[in-house]
Amino acid sequence: MDFKEQIKQVKLAAPKMANTTKQNRNQALQSVSTALLHNQDAIFAANQEDRKQAKLDGVPEPILNRLKFDDKKLKDVLAGIQDLIKLSDPLFQTVFQRELDQGLLLKKVTCPIGVIGVIFEARPDALVQISALCIKSGNCVVLKGGSEALKTNKILFDIIYKAILEAGLPLHCMMQLEARSEIKELLSCHGLVDLLIPRGSNAFVQYIMDNTKIPVMGHADGICHIYVDLDADLAKAVPIVFDAKTQYVSACNAVETLLVHKEIAPRFLPELKKMLDKKQVEIRGTKEVAKLISCKEATEEDNKTEYLDYILSVKIVENLQQAIDHINFYGSHHTDCIITENKETAEIFMDLVDSAGVYQNCSTRFADGYRYGFGAELGISTGKLHARGPVGLEGLVSYKYKLFGEGQIVEDYALGRKSFHFKEL
Amino acid sequence: MDFKEQIKQVKLAAPKMANTTKQNRNQALQSVSTALLHNQDAIFAANQEDRKQAKLDGVPEPILNRLKFDDKKLKDVLAGIQDLIKLSDPLFQTVFQRELDQGLLLKKVTCPIGVIGVIFEARPDALVQISALCIKSGNCVVLKGGSEALKTNKILFDIIYKAILEAGLPLHCMMQLEARSEIKELLSCHGLVDLLIPRGSNAFVQYIMDNTKIPVMGHADGICHIYVDLDADLAKAVPIVFDAKTQYVSACNAVETLLVHKEIAPRFLPELKKMLDKKQVEIRGTKEVAKLISCKEATEEDNKTEYLDYILSVKIVENLQQAIDHINFYGSHHTDCIITENKETAEIFMDLVDSAGVYQNCSTRFADGYRYGFGAELGISTGKLHARGPVGLEGLVSYKYKLFGEGQIVEDYALGRKSFHFKEL
Repeated sequence: MDFKEQIKQVKLAAPKMANTTKQNRNQALQSVSTALLHNQDAIFAANQEDRKQAKLDGVPEPILNRLKFDDKKLKDVLAGIQDLIKLSDPLFQTVFQRELDQGLLLKKVTCPIGVIGVIFEARPDALVQISALCIKSGNCVVLKGGSEALKTNKILFDIIYKAILEAGLPLHCMMQLEARSEIKELLSCHGLVDLLIPRGSNAFVQYIMDNTKIPVMGHADGICHIYVDLDADLAKAVPIVFDAKTQYVSACNAVETLLVHKEIAPRFLPELKKMLDKKQVEIRGTKEVAKLISCKEATEEDNKTEYLDYILSVKIVENLQQAIDHINFYGSHHTDCIITENKETAEIFMDLVDSAGVYQNCSTRFADGYRYGFGAELGISTGKLHARGPVGLEGLVSYKYKLFGEGQIVEDYALGRKSFHFKEL
Repeated sequence: MDFKEQIKQVKLAAPKMANTTKQNRNQALQSVSTALLHNQDAIFAANQEDRKQAKLDGVPEPILNRLKFDDKKLKDVLAGIQDLIKLSDPLFQTVFQRELDQGLLLKKVTCPIGVIGVIFEARPDALVQISALCIKSGNCVVLKGGSEALKTNKILFDIIYKAILEAGLPLHCMMQLEARSEIKELLSCHGLVDLLIPRGSNAFVQYIMDNTKIPVMGHADGICHIYVDLDADLAKAVPIVFDAKTQYVSACNAVETLLVHKEIAPRFLPELKKMLDKKQVEIRGTKEVAKLISCKEATEEDNKTEYLDYILSVKIVENLQQAIDHINFYGSHHTDCIITENKETAEIFMDLVDSAGVYQNCSTRFADGYRYGFGAELGISTGKLHARGPVGLEGLVSYKYKLFGEGQIVEDYALGRKSFHFKEL
């Protein structure tokens, strides 16, 4: 069967998947949990092969760590599945019911999106989380994981798919791509795949967005800002900036640009630099910054750069409005933070900054589905349509309008023989 | 000022518009209402010029009717504005509040989408409705109406924009394009315009979707189906199909394809034909249909065609599943209806048909924001992300996550020194 034919099978499974009961889907999740536990030795063995190969290929240490699927990672994903089972059903929820006229009942009811394609990094635990979120939300899923995890992904997929079929979910409700070349074919499946969620490098996500007609949810850039206001408490500001920059530099929610109010800069910047020096963070500052601390000179390019590294660009601003304008212009609408003790200033900042996450007095690194209490996330959206910020179960449902009538025709209403009465039920 | 600079001004106005109060926006709507009434003679005069020109240009009668902006249309839009004022504020609504940990409060709050571009047909009342919806929802709007309504649109826009500025809404929160050539420029405004809503012909909407990176909401095709089930009540089926086909043939929610259960076809089709003959509806049927009534022969192409005319394609199906499969395969996921007295059959149809509207025993022509009680609509979406079906106020808002902290850093949670407690507030 050729590629498109296979995807068509998944599309055809979508209405069946959409109509599985909560019990069906929770039971399937339970079966997945049991099957993973039962097959743990085989999974760990496959993972060891992947890691051995990755080491031979010179894959860097941080990626090797993410590639690891051991007892601890298994426990984590199993706990995640149990949490998911406990969450209330996102499907078949009546958003509203309205009687349009006597005997003409409109119901807005949640339903799955359909077929979701997820392209993700070489992290086998992500495969389990993504599959579980899609099962819970009644979506069919086409998975493509990072190639370094090929063997682990293969065995995980086989175990999960077998378990959910045995639990009664429809044939073809999951599919895994193994070759990177298949991504290009997937991008052409407009009309068959309802949503693509690409995770990975900026360039990769941008490539996906530019090369498909399928709606894409996610983010390319993560240029997060912290603005240290005139009324900042430096005892909070220094550790927050340090955490947001260094806790995990390659995360999309790490801070890249620091904006500092001119009146607090002389006190704040030297203190911050002392702290950042502990992790050899390179500071790229404007001329005004260079007068206060030693740093490299920043260029216009630095305003637009997601370093994902131990580098921070620093700029001094005249006032709150300048900070807001800078963030709205250069930012990526991901997560931006103000450090201030002034509640009013914080409110203005949080209302006027046009980002998925607007924070006061805490690290930008909190922008994450797990930390928001969503259980897990499928990605973080910087778009403003459908889901924004971390995307959990709620971002995986759509709705349909069901209208129940008794023979009503529009002509009667158009000619004024009948009229709507719109009663909420 | 060049085009992009003007759009940038609108983009810069968006955060200000987002932070107007409910009172600001309702008062602006009230001012619009008063100003329209006050300037009605000038509006009607401009409209008469447009209609005179359109007649000279040989614009067909149905379009001339839509172009008309008279006392009745004015009354309708003014009533619409009053309804909108009464609706509760879609902005600043707290969707949920969750304490992640002591002193770390997450709020999910609704906010406008930002800048919305709407390209619409030559219907001046649409300009007023669209502007009013955007004002109520705190969105900036870039309008491009059909060129036949040029003069009417110009005066309406000037009146509305002046009224809302006087009421205190921000400068540049509305903009109108007058030349068709500007549409192409608008399509390149990715990053400045947050959402495009094109209305118009299938080909036009498809052109927009194919030529921009801005998210597009709407529908190209409207291939709606009615399935007449074995258990249909013919006294309902005949008038419903007649209404859905002929009440307004050029609407996207008019029926294009009729599917009939083989066992009811011999009784139903001759009766239906009698009725359709009254309006000279051309029937294109399969061979099985031709055995029961006289008709033109349907081809595969008919399954995929939105006629927008007095033409109906008719096919006989073996059973419910065949009807569902046909609709999911050939349909445009707009609005599809089953005629049946069997509740169980209806439920299966409505659950398995993957469309924005799934109906039982009523005309597909009900698929409309006004008829759903939304006040007005900006368009009908056949996509499954964000808004589906008729798009009212609710489809014009997004949300942001506000996180209020007291100095929290992620490292404390990563190292297990602190943990989340997730309390709903």
